[in-house]
Amino acid sequence: MKPVKVGICGLGTVGSGTVNVLTNNAQDIARRAGREIIIGQVGARRDNPACDTSGMDVSRDIFAVAKNPEIDIVVELIGGYDVARELVLTAIEHGKHVVTANKALIAVHGDEIFAAAEAKGVSVMYEAGVAGGIPIIKAVREGLAANRINWLAGIINGTGNFILTEMRDKGRDFDDVLKEAQQLGYAEADPTFDVEGIDAAHKLTILSSIAYGIPLQFERCYTEGIGNITPDDVEYAEELGYRIKHLGVSCRSENGIDLRVHPTMIPVARPIATVDGVLNAVMVNGDAVGDTLYVGAGAGAGPTASAVVADVVDLARAIDAPASARVNHLAFNQIDDVSVLPMEEVETAYYLRIEALDKAGVLANVASILSERGINIEAIIQKEPKDEDKMAQIILLTHRIVEKTMNEAIAEIEALASTVGQVTRIRVEHLN
Amino acid sequence: MKPVKVGICGLGTVGSGTVNVLTNNAQDIARRAGREIIIGQVGARRDNPACDTSGMDVSRDIFAVAKNPEIDIVVELIGGYDVARELVLTAIEHGKHVVTANKALIAVHGDEIFAAAEAKGVSVMYEAGVAGGIPIIKAVREGLAANRINWLAGIINGTGNFILTEMRDKGRDFDDVLKEAQQLGYAEADPTFDVEGIDAAHKLTILSSIAYGIPLQFERCYTEGIGNITPDDVEYAEELGYRIKHLGVSCRSENGIDLRVHPTMIPVARPIATVDGVLNAVMVNGDAVGDTLYVGAGAGAGPTASAVVADVVDLARAIDAPASARVNHLAFNQIDDVSVLPMEEVETAYYLRIEALDKAGVLANVASILSERGINIEAIIQKEPKDEDKMAQIILLTHRIVEKTMNEAIAEIEALASTVGQVTRIRVEHLN
Repeated sequence: MKPVKVGICGLGTVGSGTVNVLTNNAQDIARRAGREIIIGQVGARRDNPACDTSGMDVSRDIFAVAKNPEIDIVVELIGGYDVARELVLTAIEHGKHVVTANKALIAVHGDEIFAAAEAKGVSVMYEAGVAGGIPIIKAVREGLAANRINWLAGIINGTGNFILTEMRDKGRDFDDVLKEAQQLGYAEADPTFDVEGIDAAHKLTILSSIAYGIPLQFERCYTEGIGNITPDDVEYAEELGYRIKHLGVSCRSENGIDLRVHPTMIPVARPIATVDGVLNAVMVNGDAVGDTLYVGAGAGAGPTASAVVADVVDLARAIDAPASARVNHLAFNQIDDVSVLPMEEVETAYYLRIEALDKAGVLANVASILSERGINIEAIIQKEPKDEDKMAQIILLTHRIVEKTMNEAIAEIEALASTVGQVTRIRVEHLN
Repeated sequence: MKPVKVGICGLGTVGSGTVNVLTNNAQDIARRAGREIIIGQVGARRDNPACDTSGMDVSRDIFAVAKNPEIDIVVELIGGYDVARELVLTAIEHGKHVVTANKALIAVHGDEIFAAAEAKGVSVMYEAGVAGGIPIIKAVREGLAANRINWLAGIINGTGNFILTEMRDKGRDFDDVLKEAQQLGYAEADPTFDVEGIDAAHKLTILSSIAYGIPLQFERCYTEGIGNITPDDVEYAEELGYRIKHLGVSCRSENGIDLRVHPTMIPVARPIATVDGVLNAVMVNGDAVGDTLYVGAGAGAGPTASAVVADVVDLARAIDAPASARVNHLAFNQIDDVSVLPMEEVETAYYLRIEALDKAGVLANVASILSERGINIEAIIQKEPKDEDKMAQIILLTHRIVEKTMNEAIAEIEALASTVGQVTRIRVEHLN
């Protein structure tokens, strides 16, 4: 069969990794795809010593690749929004399939891009956009196709997981570990995307759409970063049998579908709680299959290239087949116009840490504030001041309650004369 | 588009689960497949109260389903070898695609069945045969298609994992837990398939073929059961930072490919070590992606039906496409005629437990026996006799060495006048 020609746009970490995988494993890849997969052209503003493009057709103009009549599949690895969007739409317009690792692009412009692709009868694949090398898009979109998905939850930002792991293992504080992560190259100079949960929100947006068949709604995803987690919280969580992870969570309930990224306490006994360092992990619960868990590297040249090339192989195998033979962009051929719930309507359990002047009095007040709102307490720990200038701390675990009610309770607790400063709130999920 | 008609043969646990999933989730499944999937006929010797087949065309002759000109996909859920093989070959002969949950059939007769299917231009899918609801066949065959797979290792028999988990958590012994597993319905009346590793060997055989593109070689898979594991071994493993799991392991090295199911000590810190009870888990290491891990329910009506129906959806989506658009049966379109290594040539690390009359003397002798063969010792624990009629025990962890050399060393240790009975040997894998 005729070889399939791939055009690779972008030669950064992932681009050079993709060139290397396609080159080094060419023979096995051809045996899997049923035909040769050839790098027909590379588009990059500059070379990258991490990969050898000698003998390849290299253009300094990525749009030349998108328009090249010889190319069957355009691989977008330049990142960002505007140029990437234009590149992908140009490639589609020229009848090419597209593979991208760009979660921000898909989460924000996916609906537009998929509509253009469907009009042209081509596919846009994005396995590499979520959880790096873990084939989680394929698992949710195809492997669990029999299921009504109930919920999913994931550690989908390696930088955040590295920071929380270091805080737990070594009792270090957030700022200190963030600095190290930046030195190690895990975190960007501007770490906002990672530690504020924006990157995770992009990925969660995509996962929830293919899980439930709903539109991409990045703008409705609640995000909260890990910058306020203290070593105390990490320690108390462990004491209570929990671990703090920066989780993307999406559940379907009678009220609707929620979509949120926030620090989350999960039971230590769950295998996902042991996923440490820069690893990623996603749990998916379906009505037939129950819980499933997927773990692997969420970033890096090799893992991301692994996902990019898997998409290329899928496309190459079915490149002569009608478009209906390929999987739907968002898993379903009809998308339900369901809106994501506002955070105020989401129900979770809570960990609260309250700084108190007068422990005994506070506890009675807090208990009555919670009880008035039907919030049940699951566990209480009281901590003496660690040194003279610190307050006593009251730590509570509550049963599940809607966020709105908890917001009111917290406001009232903070207004007590006997409490100091803000109440720390960490949401608790049992993942079952 | 025209609905796809499925014929379900067998109405046991998995058959009734499959009917229920196809019925209950019909609407979502149609949105995913791009067309309706209808149960065109059911073949079963008797009804099953766990599912409602009223209104369905039910035949007492499963072969009528395989020959029914209305049926597009035949789902074989009767189990066993001979009748299942005949049923599948009949369905293929009549131009039907086949979905099966029968690992024994695929591991033993897969090459014959796939050849027949390829001659007819139809596909035989078997996701449900390995690790129940975990989409591991899809992950290895498609999700990791970019990779040269280096090794894989899995907890792929839930009964065995349940027994080992109970032994560890409660200090119980093997026979005691096995009896309970039988009462709970986890283990068959004849537990040989589960606890001797035969069921796991079927699954491992399939996984290794799709990982490396080699023929199915069930007859060359080494199997060793968990019946000889004692509570002492479980305890000493923990003390050394390891956990005992009944693992299927297959590695590719310079010497060749190995294929083996045996009790295995793995580091406690690995997430797979925390996969307990009846859960299954598979680790796959690829050259680009590194380590990946997949966890979920390995058996049961819902999880197995989830995998069966995922295969049905994949087939339904591409049913009008040319055969080349579907994934190769064993992942590769050319199979390398590589033979699996004999166990004697396999290299692993070892845990040895030696019962000794005279500790001091034995240790010197053992150390010299190992050292003469280039076997390095990683750790030693000595245990005093637990009560008067017990022996002292010497526990050793060794570095990696080929099995043949270890066999010789063990024979010599057992021949020492100062040791008693057989040396217990548990293979150790670090999974990295």
